[in-house]
Amino acid sequence: MARLTKPHREAESEMSIPTAVPQKNPADAPHTGLEGVIAARTELSDVDGRAGVLTVRGYDIEELAGNAAFEEVAHLLWHGALPTATELRELQGRLSGYRRLPEETSVAIELAARRMPPMDALQFIVGSLIADDPDPEDESREANLMRAEKLVARVPVIVAGYHRLRSGQSVLEPREDCSLAANFLYQLLGKEQPAGEIRGLDTYLVTVADHGMNASTFAARVIASTASDMYSAVTGALGALKGRLHGGAPGPALQMIEEIGTPDRAEAWMRDAVASGRRLMGFGHRIYKVRDPRAEVLYQAAEALADETGEQQALALAREVERAGVQVLAESKPGRNLNTNVEFYTALLLREIGLPQDLFTPTFAIGRTAGWTAHVLEQQATGRLIRPQSEYIGPRGLRYIPVSQR
Amino acid sequence: MARLTKPHREAESEMSIPTAVPQKNPADAPHTGLEGVIAARTELSDVDGRAGVLTVRGYDIEELAGNAAFEEVAHLLWHGALPTATELRELQGRLSGYRRLPEETSVAIELAARRMPPMDALQFIVGSLIADDPDPEDESREANLMRAEKLVARVPVIVAGYHRLRSGQSVLEPREDCSLAANFLYQLLGKEQPAGEIRGLDTYLVTVADHGMNASTFAARVIASTASDMYSAVTGALGALKGRLHGGAPGPALQMIEEIGTPDRAEAWMRDAVASGRRLMGFGHRIYKVRDPRAEVLYQAAEALADETGEQQALALAREVERAGVQVLAESKPGRNLNTNVEFYTALLLREIGLPQDLFTPTFAIGRTAGWTAHVLEQQATGRLIRPQSEYIGPRGLRYIPVSQR
Repeated sequence: MARLTKPHREAESEMSIPTAVPQKNPADAPHTGLEGVIAARTELSDVDGRAGVLTVRGYDIEELAGNAAFEEVAHLLWHGALPTATELRELQGRLSGYRRLPEETSVAIELAARRMPPMDALQFIVGSLIADDPDPEDESREANLMRAEKLVARVPVIVAGYHRLRSGQSVLEPREDCSLAANFLYQLLGKEQPAGEIRGLDTYLVTVADHGMNASTFAARVIASTASDMYSAVTGALGALKGRLHGGAPGPALQMIEEIGTPDRAEAWMRDAVASGRRLMGFGHRIYKVRDPRAEVLYQAAEALADETGEQQALALAREVERAGVQVLAESKPGRNLNTNVEFYTALLLREIGLPQDLFTPTFAIGRTAGWTAHVLEQQATGRLIRPQSEYIGPRGLRYIPVSQR
Repeated sequence: MARLTKPHREAESEMSIPTAVPQKNPADAPHTGLEGVIAARTELSDVDGRAGVLTVRGYDIEELAGNAAFEEVAHLLWHGALPTATELRELQGRLSGYRRLPEETSVAIELAARRMPPMDALQFIVGSLIADDPDPEDESREANLMRAEKLVARVPVIVAGYHRLRSGQSVLEPREDCSLAANFLYQLLGKEQPAGEIRGLDTYLVTVADHGMNASTFAARVIASTASDMYSAVTGALGALKGRLHGGAPGPALQMIEEIGTPDRAEAWMRDAVASGRRLMGFGHRIYKVRDPRAEVLYQAAEALADETGEQQALALAREVERAGVQVLAESKPGRNLNTNVEFYTALLLREIGLPQDLFTPTFAIGRTAGWTAHVLEQQATGRLIRPQSEYIGPRGLRYIPVSQR
């Protein structure tokens, strides 16, 4: 059986764990991964891994997912409170207006669609958005809020446009009369989508909008801390999100479920995988010691859609894969509390909605852009440079010898 | 008198200090800037701020600057030893070959030259370089060394091409028969430059090639630590370098010297500036408590060129500005040991070489790309994710209220 993914060099990734014994940090290098070091205070979100609670600006994620529209949660992250009806209407109006892209960005999309994979493309194209910034010198909160809104509005338009061009289809003009999720699906798939799919995507975007100090959020804050611009911070965050060790890429979990094929094969497949040291995708999390609260929210969203999309069988398979996986892992790694993480049902939900698998991570980025930009605003308000130290372990006092004498 | 620069929100920048009293960290937030926290062990470089020593892979910077070519120092950073004659010839051959850009990059340069400022342009264009990566899945050290070489070879070609197009001039084909510094000046200025200018630029690039764990290097390592690609890491570093608080931008120091105009005005200007709380550009450093060792190296390089370029007067003015600045700062801020930093003579040297002022920071990036890529290689070898924590200081347990009831 083919490897599901390449071997991971890091013992504990964000989102998935290898079944091999993890390598421990050398006791004498406690800080080289900055584990346990507090790099920022935040009012944005909190992950309580023991209790399995994700708090976003005061709300458990279960309160928001399925209830609040993504635009409401973006407002919540940026401003600290859910919007009033007027605030929401005004925000939706601005976001709709920003769906028209700068000329540079449209050309960058064409360029990227030639041969760049989705995340490389997205990072490159987002770098062009700064071209139409009305006043790069304006570092006021108002100016940065506008940048945050533009980024949230435009990232989905970029993803959709890139996908249309790389598939040999024409780019559709954005609509201004619908939500961000509805417009994204319209521009991506070429026609208006049913309410259930739109609601499912909205739930997904809300679920992933923010998640404490993950590696991409940290990258965004490091860059923002130099007083660089918000576009640079989000470009850096996209770069970090590309990495295997960041996680949040639900494709491999879906591949695993598809490879297992039928519920009756799940347990044997899991035992075989664990015995051969293969990584189980979608299980385990660096922080959560109980079930990732996002897994249940996304399962419910997938279930709500299943009657319409005919995915009941796939969902039942996934449930059995989850049950078998948790059981096998509990037996083989007692005490490690390995449960399903956000990847597991993300994959099913996004597939039900009609997204191609290689757009799962860019779609994650659409949601997380709300969180990244909120963290940038928060970091900017501190005015502090994030600049740790390094420990030099090389030689000293060498003398230069001309190349002819080497 | 006009403000030289915008007010800085951070008390201590990398490279320049405000003359106002710095804001102290609150005692209860010791880690929010990660000061004093060790984020990596490195064999690459070390900054001893008390002794005024910059060590690069075992060599004091004074041993390398003026002696070693930039290509030698890139090899030193990547491999830990200066190259043999054969290794150097082979490296030069590969770097020359990489000067031809991917098609996407050439189009991105045209796009950026329309209206993007230099650093925004450079960051955006570098994001296109990943398009011609022969195998993005190959994470071997060999593959990453090739990426490092391509980045070091191509960043100067990008800067030169961008500048030609934005100035309404045609882009010149790269030469393959000369050094990186010589080709950069040729492609930028449109003709072969004298040996003195080329040597001066080489000295500059060597001087800034690496400098411990500064904010852009840290951004590169954070992104690389997710197992993302080297292009993403360098794109993130360029984003961090854009920030005012990163420093390394020598333009403002040059503006200050030009504003002072003549040596006899230096001391009065300095006293007036300190009295009115204005920031003195080019003085002080977050780490160095004595004179930045790079200042002397760059002064000597500028002096070596001065007879040829007729810049003796400017150099004499700068010397007097330095003398007066150090004296006035010593009187007004006793014990703070504020000396000239790398910005001060960088500005004069780069101007002598013929670079426009808004390309000073992109030229810094040409040199620092050697260091960034070496740090990425080093971070990749650790296989560790850099992921600190945040402390949540917001509310909990709020209940969702529908928008109609808010």
